[in-house]
Amino acid sequence: MGKERAVVLLSGGLDSATVLAVALAGGFDVLAITFSYGQRHDVEIECARRLAHKGRVLEHVIVDIPSEIFSGSALTGIDLKDVPKHGAVPGGPGIPVTYVPARNILFLSYALAFAESRMADTVFIGAHSVDYSGYPDCRGEFFEAFEKMAALGTKCGVEGRPIRVQTPLLNLGKHEIIQLGAELGVDYSITHSCYDPDTEGRACGECDSCRIRKKGFEAAGIPDPTKYGKVP
Amino acid sequence: MGKERAVVLLSGGLDSATVLAVALAGGFDVLAITFSYGQRHDVEIECARRLAHKGRVLEHVIVDIPSEIFSGSALTGIDLKDVPKHGAVPGGPGIPVTYVPARNILFLSYALAFAESRMADTVFIGAHSVDYSGYPDCRGEFFEAFEKMAALGTKCGVEGRPIRVQTPLLNLGKHEIIQLGAELGVDYSITHSCYDPDTEGRACGECDSCRIRKKGFEAAGIPDPTKYGKVP
Repeated sequence: MGKERAVVLLSGGLDSATVLAVALAGGFDVLAITFSYGQRHDVEIECARRLAHKGRVLEHVIVDIPSEIFSGSALTGIDLKDVPKHGAVPGGPGIPVTYVPARNILFLSYALAFAESRMADTVFIGAHSVDYSGYPDCRGEFFEAFEKMAALGTKCGVEGRPIRVQTPLLNLGKHEIIQLGAELGVDYSITHSCYDPDTEGRACGECDSCRIRKKGFEAAGIPDPTKYGKVP
Repeated sequence: MGKERAVVLLSGGLDSATVLAVALAGGFDVLAITFSYGQRHDVEIECARRLAHKGRVLEHVIVDIPSEIFSGSALTGIDLKDVPKHGAVPGGPGIPVTYVPARNILFLSYALAFAESRMADTVFIGAHSVDYSGYPDCRGEFFEAFEKMAALGTKCGVEGRPIRVQTPLLNLGKHEIIQLGAELGVDYSITHSCYDPDTEGRACGECDSCRIRKKGFEAAGIPDPTKYGKVP
């Protein structure tokens, strides 16, 4: 009998690279799914491809999501490209301005369909609620509700093999995620976090995402392999 | 103040055309979303476009779903194009062979993201559990669980304006759906049900879906406006 299969949500960022390593270390045969949409830079998709290749995943699908789903409507005037480079750092009350409507719900639903069609029992997602505490779709109670809904709405759930949603990073800070990944041998040089990379895909070193990443490596006591475009 | 907005899942079939009419009759400003994937015939998408145009919806998005999400993998060997033309009729135990992994979950998640980004409070879906009783994702308890999950995982839910999922056809038989639509003035000549249309998009009149549709019109006592390719 073969190993258990899992679908990993792989963005190409630091968190999902770590989750991929967790799934592989857990003995799963891994399939990966990556989403391309308004907010994503090509360099991040390319990182996802390289991570999937390096992790020898069984299958990697890249799904385009039309930009008008999340935004870009004349009705709302929201444009994902206008997402602020600063302001996503925690500490303030409420939901961060970088919230994207129902994003994790849509991503998990794709992963669920992909998992069920491939007879995978588990979906891994790199959500965490420590550094960014305000996202409704990064909370444990949301993931529990998603699992319940999925158990009721799928054939495998009705037949007694509901798909589990695993969130191994949920209660970890960025430095703990990096420490975990380093122990598992993640090559963070092929991950991308920057909101505003230069034309060669190098990180700016200054946006919120870069700053959280840098601080994470510092706090973890691990050298930061990121190629920054400017000398920081 | 404007009217309330709703997103209608519009396949181009008889059921979703009826639901569109219900939403319009309910006074909503309607946005429509249609999915194109392996199993869909172009003629059905074209029906969706015509229904949306006729219903003067505010916005209509057509979303491509990669065929490998639901099937078509070398790992499983399932191909949606091989879905049987017969065998979907109710009466047998268990889940119909025409079940597609997590399809309604994915469709509703897209509708949810679209609704939240457009400040719509309601999603309409034409699911019903009378004629096809075995689908897990066409049951009331599933829709309730989806609403709960969505309330926890979206900004609007957390802020106290959770999106409702309306299923006005849930407990209706096909003939009741047709009677309802006829009362609301639905033009069923621009809806499509056939699994196996000819090259001009005309219905075969013989597949399960055609037969259920025909029987529905008969039982409703309403002339069937469907253009059949062969003389039935």
